[in-house]
Amino acid sequence: MAEHLKIDFLTLFPKMLEGFLNESMLGRAQEAGILELNVHDIRNWATSKHKITDDRPFGGGPGMLMKPEPIFSAIEELQTPNCTRIYMCPDGEKFSPQHAEEFSKAGHLIILSGHYEGIDQRVRDCLIDREISIGDYVLTNGTLPAAVIADATARYVKGVLGEENSLTYDSFNDNLLAFPQYTRPADFRGMKVPEVLMSGDHKKIAEWRREQQIIKTKERRQDILK
Amino acid sequence: MAEHLKIDFLTLFPKMLEGFLNESMLGRAQEAGILELNVHDIRNWATSKHKITDDRPFGGGPGMLMKPEPIFSAIEELQTPNCTRIYMCPDGEKFSPQHAEEFSKAGHLIILSGHYEGIDQRVRDCLIDREISIGDYVLTNGTLPAAVIADATARYVKGVLGEENSLTYDSFNDNLLAFPQYTRPADFRGMKVPEVLMSGDHKKIAEWRREQQIIKTKERRQDILK
Repeated sequence: MAEHLKIDFLTLFPKMLEGFLNESMLGRAQEAGILELNVHDIRNWATSKHKITDDRPFGGGPGMLMKPEPIFSAIEELQTPNCTRIYMCPDGEKFSPQHAEEFSKAGHLIILSGHYEGIDQRVRDCLIDREISIGDYVLTNGTLPAAVIADATARYVKGVLGEENSLTYDSFNDNLLAFPQYTRPADFRGMKVPEVLMSGDHKKIAEWRREQQIIKTKERRQDILK
Repeated sequence: MAEHLKIDFLTLFPKMLEGFLNESMLGRAQEAGILELNVHDIRNWATSKHKITDDRPFGGGPGMLMKPEPIFSAIEELQTPNCTRIYMCPDGEKFSPQHAEEFSKAGHLIILSGHYEGIDQRVRDCLIDREISIGDYVLTNGTLPAAVIADATARYVKGVLGEENSLTYDSFNDNLLAFPQYTRPADFRGMKVPEVLMSGDHKKIAEWRREQQIIKTKERRQDILK
């Protein structure tokens, strides 16, 4: 497992990210020095008087595109020799736990979030190592997807999840969905926890959970079943 | 298209959402009265002295589960007769633009974000109308996925995208990925914009874009090609 990860976020909406990055497990991991998360406003690299970062597309069409110059300047300033430069876009590779694990080992990521209509293709052709999509749907911009990548990836950095949690019980391990879970009270408004879970018989509990995983996966996700 | 949407978010990490919801298009749509977005801390419905909202799972295993009582109280207080109650989880239905459009018409959504290890199954069995996943990967908690659903769904509420943007050119329309886009300068460090886009010939431009869409989709996403 990687022991440290630095991520530089490039976005037009830095405030969208700040709240998220300082909370929860990622906030604690930054305090512990395991993660270094820096949010950069792309406007800082705009050279025009009005800090313009977008313009109309050649050939017509609605919306605005991000201009190449500020992004080239930003990435050229931030990049390090072995960093991975990621662009979030709906037509990228579909993000998976394998990507998260791979990115966690890069040491340094630069994650560029696009505007609604996208960015100039020359940025994608020259500066980007990986184009990544978090799913087949469209968002108002790429800033939330950048946060999703960071969160999923950070889980593979040593110390981020803490002792209480683990990667072992995740959904998608063994290509099976997670089993149903129950906590106290054992009887809530007449709804009781399955008896096997109260039995203390670890073998039976493990069998029941595996059975439930298979049932749920067959019902919901035939596609991931081996 | 729906003309108004109210979303109640239930989370243990309200600060993760606030920054995001007040920025960009969603911030503007709230000011315009088109969207009403309320973030609720589930701890507000905890009745114990220490505001405890989680407990260990019956049957053993790592991590903590969210307890049923505070969530039952919260949803029973917030729900309205025709609202849709959504739970974010990796084993839910895979989120799609069709879900976004459907949810935009619900008028009122309650989106419950789970803790890392999940919530008591009785909540899922009794209170939840739809279990939704944003993709096959695991995150530290369900708060970011709730933001993703809200963002994608808000795009289908009238007035949120504004005149400049549109749903028409989205990736996945016609089951094709988006075409490459370029903006000024026409020549950036010797990298030139394709000539056809400067031609002013709208028919040729449309043909070139369609051709590029087909090439990219064949290369990257044979699976969505009709």
